[in-house]
Amino acid sequence: MTPAFARRPPAVPLTGVVPPLCTPLTDGGEVAAEGLEALVERMLTAGVSGVFVLGSTGEAAFLDDARRATALRAAVAAVDGRVPVLAGALDMTTARVIAHAEAAAQAGASALVATAPFYTRTHPAEIANHFRRIRAAVPLPLFAYDIPVAVHTKLPPAVVLELAGDGTLAGLKDSSGDDGALRRLLVELRTRGLLDRFSVLTGSELAVDGALLAGAHGVVPGLGNVDPDGYVRLCTLARAGRWSEAAAEQDRLAALFALVDAGPPEVMGRNSSAVGAFKAALHLLGVIGSPATAPPQIPLDTAAVKTVRRLLEEAGLL
Amino acid sequence: MTPAFARRPPAVPLTGVVPPLCTPLTDGGEVAAEGLEALVERMLTAGVSGVFVLGSTGEAAFLDDARRATALRAAVAAVDGRVPVLAGALDMTTARVIAHAEAAAQAGASALVATAPFYTRTHPAEIANHFRRIRAAVPLPLFAYDIPVAVHTKLPPAVVLELAGDGTLAGLKDSSGDDGALRRLLVELRTRGLLDRFSVLTGSELAVDGALLAGAHGVVPGLGNVDPDGYVRLCTLARAGRWSEAAAEQDRLAALFALVDAGPPEVMGRNSSAVGAFKAALHLLGVIGSPATAPPQIPLDTAAVKTVRRLLEEAGLL
Amino acid sequence: MTPAFARRPPAVPLTGVVPPLCTPLTDGGEVAAEGLEALVERMLTAGVSGVFVLGSTGEAAFLDDARRATALRAAVAAVDGRVPVLAGALDMTTARVIAHAEAAAQAGASALVATAPFYTRTHPAEIANHFRRIRAAVPLPLFAYDIPVAVHTKLPPAVVLELAGDGTLAGLKDSSGDDGALRRLLVELRTRGLLDRFSVLTGSELAVDGALLAGAHGVVPGLGNVDPDGYVRLCTLARAGRWSEAAAEQDRLAALFALVDAGPPEVMGRNSSAVGAFKAALHLLGVIGSPATAPPQIPLDTAAVKTVRRLLEEAGLL
Amino acid sequence: MTPAFARRPPAVPLTGVVPPLCTPLTDGGEVAAEGLEALVERMLTAGVSGVFVLGSTGEAAFLDDARRATALRAAVAAVDGRVPVLAGALDMTTARVIAHAEAAAQAGASALVATAPFYTRTHPAEIANHFRRIRAAVPLPLFAYDIPVAVHTKLPPAVVLELAGDGTLAGLKDSSGDDGALRRLLVELRTRGLLDRFSVLTGSELAVDGALLAGAHGVVPGLGNVDPDGYVRLCTLARAGRWSEAAAEQDRLAALFALVDAGPPEVMGRNSSAVGAFKAALHLLGVIGSPATAPPQIPLDTAAVKTVRRLLEEAGLL
Repeated sequence: MTPAFARRPPAVPLTGVVPPLCTPLTDGGEVAAEGLEALVERMLTAGVSGVFVLGSTGEAAFLDDARRATALRAAVAAVDGRVPVLAGALDMTTARVIAHAEAAAQAGASALVATAPFYTRTHPAEIANHFRRIRAAVPLPLFAYDIPVAVHTKLPPAVVLELAGDGTLAGLKDSSGDDGALRRLLVELRTRGLLDRFSVLTGSELAVDGALLAGAHGVVPGLGNVDPDGYVRLCTLARAGRWSEAAAEQDRLAALFALVDAGPPEVMGRNSSAVGAFKAALHLLGVIGSPATAPPQIPLDTAAVKTVRRLLEEAGLL
Repeated sequence: MTPAFARRPPAVPLTGVVPPLCTPLTDGGEVAAEGLEALVERMLTAGVSGVFVLGSTGEAAFLDDARRATALRAAVAAVDGRVPVLAGALDMTTARVIAHAEAAAQAGASALVATAPFYTRTHPAEIANHFRRIRAAVPLPLFAYDIPVAVHTKLPPAVVLELAGDGTLAGLKDSSGDDGALRRLLVELRTRGLLDRFSVLTGSELAVDGALLAGAHGVVPGLGNVDPDGYVRLCTLARAGRWSEAAAEQDRLAALFALVDAGPPEVMGRNSSAVGAFKAALHLLGVIGSPATAPPQIPLDTAAVKTVRRLLEEAGLL
Repeated sequence: MTPAFARRPPAVPLTGVVPPLCTPLTDGGEVAAEGLEALVERMLTAGVSGVFVLGSTGEAAFLDDARRATALRAAVAAVDGRVPVLAGALDMTTARVIAHAEAAAQAGASALVATAPFYTRTHPAEIANHFRRIRAAVPLPLFAYDIPVAVHTKLPPAVVLELAGDGTLAGLKDSSGDDGALRRLLVELRTRGLLDRFSVLTGSELAVDGALLAGAHGVVPGLGNVDPDGYVRLCTLARAGRWSEAAAEQDRLAALFALVDAGPPEVMGRNSSAVGAFKAALHLLGVIGSPATAPPQIPLDTAAVKTVRRLLEEAGLL
Repeated sequence: MTPAFARRPPAVPLTGVVPPLCTPLTDGGEVAAEGLEALVERMLTAGVSGVFVLGSTGEAAFLDDARRATALRAAVAAVDGRVPVLAGALDMTTARVIAHAEAAAQAGASALVATAPFYTRTHPAEIANHFRRIRAAVPLPLFAYDIPVAVHTKLPPAVVLELAGDGTLAGLKDSSGDDGALRRLLVELRTRGLLDRFSVLTGSELAVDGALLAGAHGVVPGLGNVDPDGYVRLCTLARAGRWSEAAAEQDRLAALFALVDAGPPEVMGRNSSAVGAFKAALHLLGVIGSPATAPPQIPLDTAAVKTVRRLLEEAGLL
């Protein structure tokens, strides 16, 4: 039987823009496959090097297993092998992550993305053990996802280096915001001759120029859902050594990033405001059919949507 | 068709000792149903008022859905309706929690226990929305689980009061360690006339005498796996107003609690040390067949097991 | 030359109520000696066993050295040897704390209260070194002040035990709110035979009944500024083993504690609300001439003062 | 009377390298004026644009008022008006900071550096009030010091923008490590036309190339004590738009930064390791006469000093 999907392995190293796709939902809370297809097409047209499905921006924390599977299958089908599809396997610890990883492999993912254990308290040796077991269980390239704002521990650089060196990890998505630690990691990876085969992607979407200058391979920008062209331009300029122009592009994107504060903290959470604004923007841009976010998140109110519209206009996107 | 289980609804309010059961595992990492039965029997013999399955002490964070189901079914069967079985439905957000809650209902749970959303950042109104949706989706009494060390937010007292008042929540398991906040909550619940129908269970297993004196209904002590008699005695003494004797019993249990530090922080996590020590104790006591904890946790080494043995001996349990 | 003050050493162990005195200020921001005298008299009339000057409730963080000295001298003079005067020596690290400690000794303090280093990051061995140096520099009994909300580290129990054992510390003021850790500490101090000479005072003013039941010697309640009689009653009932009545008194005080939330978090800090409410209460009760708090704190607004008045009335104090 | 010092106001904006000077101490713990002079000379020879005395790297938290004054006067005398001298006025809240600020003005400082209040919990409006009062009290340019690792709150960007706009603040030293927030701040300052008169100095010494690319004016690198030439080169290359070379220089400095981990976390604090290593390096380089750090910090052991030596050799400094 021919599989329903084409699986493209990630480039080694993986460079450029790998947006963490929003998961469009219907007003009823189901995965909107059509919206996801349109979103994927928008990304590929812009020239992204891959897509990251079921990450934090993709509301993976809010989707049950069925919806996760639906979203991933829809994305894989839409991408159709044109770029690699990285799939988040987000869960509390090893056995649960492996279950998601197996589902992702079956759904056609090209690579897996997993965090350190959360909810429970672990030790660096247990974190290393965690990634080794995931890698051993599912034969796909594995990216570590360092996101202390969600996981509440910073991935220890020594663990990353160890797992990069022994081939457990294919790369890192660094959303720690700790650019000093990232710099030291990059220097150490280079010293050890690992930068050719270990991909470092920054999730710090407001300092991409600096991260690329420091040697990071690419970026996983949530805002890339809204303005993929901007991030692709940024990476292209950086690759060409046109750093001042790259910085100017980053500045423009940083101004647009005010989107994430559209919903005031008095009335809604920081996640519902940020993802809500990305989705409101995609809705205003005509990419997706509904700006709905998953429960229990509070939707953006009219004033917030107005802010989103204004920011899109100021950025020249609307 | 007769269901395979007898479901006993929790008393209103639920008082006494409701131990968060360890989940015995085989050396191969599967749920050891036999060990679980022995553990349940040990609890019921001691006189507990209920059991809490699939909580943090039960390593729910480490068990995949199949193992969670196996553990819960085994516990329900072993309890056989003699006391209520509270089941943890631990997951990141609403839809995922509801999936676990539905599975728990089908497996015969008497009540559900859920935390606020984690991994993502929310707003108090979203937390309230979260519990309301879970309650609406699954017709079982719902207990909120306040455990900031895992969830990284303290459940806002105003949310608890609101959801206690409107009947969304049947009770609270307070593992926040914030006994000042708990006191203010108890005073406010009493003022509003809610203490008769809203159960407050403390998870602060080292200050149970104080919590009962303050009006809490019962306790959910991880250490109760090891010494259920001690906690039942403590509650009985407290109910009889014999506070000095209750305090002496609590002191004895506090000394025994040194178990949780059996594994030094240099070599293992705080969870693997604590749960590992509880299981090592149950193994030494002959209750369970293996002290195994779930991956990626590091097992206790020989020195740690020796410490466990010594503490059991000092406590007169071995 | 006769010194201007009588210095009464603290009882060993120090039991009962040791309120952390507010520092009354004039509208112009100077120490109001008259108000401080009235406050001291109110405390002594109620039957406190000591007073704690220049603590967090005393706004020591906001007072420059001259004002600290004025406040301490005024308190020492007003107390006039009737009870011991504990003086906070709050500063970032050792040399700075020693300077305050020397000034406090000269001003007539009976004992010193110091935190672990803050602002900088230290190691447990450095914290122990810190207390040893303070103790060696100034020949007054030294109490450790465990207040993670201010210092951002929890005083390690092993350090407290070590310094209690070797006589560096005379006692502990535990404002950590970690009643489980406090219980374990009390049990260990008793085991080592140290509870007769090492004073454990809880700063968890909403769980004093439980702390006394657990063996703590006394309490340092900020709310004691407003209702010293209540805390003295609570301690007297506890000492007499009348635990239910003690709990009822604690409940009443816990309801009154709503004072600290008089100022809403949207408009002012948690310190300015709490200390502001204590001072507003003392002003409404006619004890002090101005409710002023030190800059840059925002004063309570009219609505907040109204809340304070209502709570005082409900508590039967006005 | 002629003052004993020449005071040079900071450039507007202040660009380039402004190292936070270590405070050399004698083995007996006194300020080593000679070492400070040599250190200043080393900095000026390298071409720094200013020096920052009594910052975190300068161990201000460990120095009593007399030692702070000695250190500042020695630095001012050594600099002799050749560059501006920024002086830290580090203390818990407003009145205490103002006392240090007045002392610093008298000692010849060119500008002041102050953090938000710490130890106590405040509100953004109180933080703004704090800086306004300091500015009103002492007529020197005032820099805000954003250092959450010490102060435990991030300076709210809205407060910085407000105080930059109304002239309260002359600049910002950003040691928050939050380069995303810094980028948004820079973009907003530029939009408001404030970047010409408000100086933004990064304290993120491992991502200086990125910060300068983003529009920051300069850097305050603790490592600049050890390798001022490197940071001056980095800034010069950046100013010339030679970004790849700037990045290479930053890489070299990032490798050298491993100094801060010379002392293992098992035996000493992170501050005593970092500052201890900088001082050990300066001692090995012959700049200062003793590597002593202030009590209660633990000194580097022989192995740690060996690590320092190796890193200096690898960096070509020894």
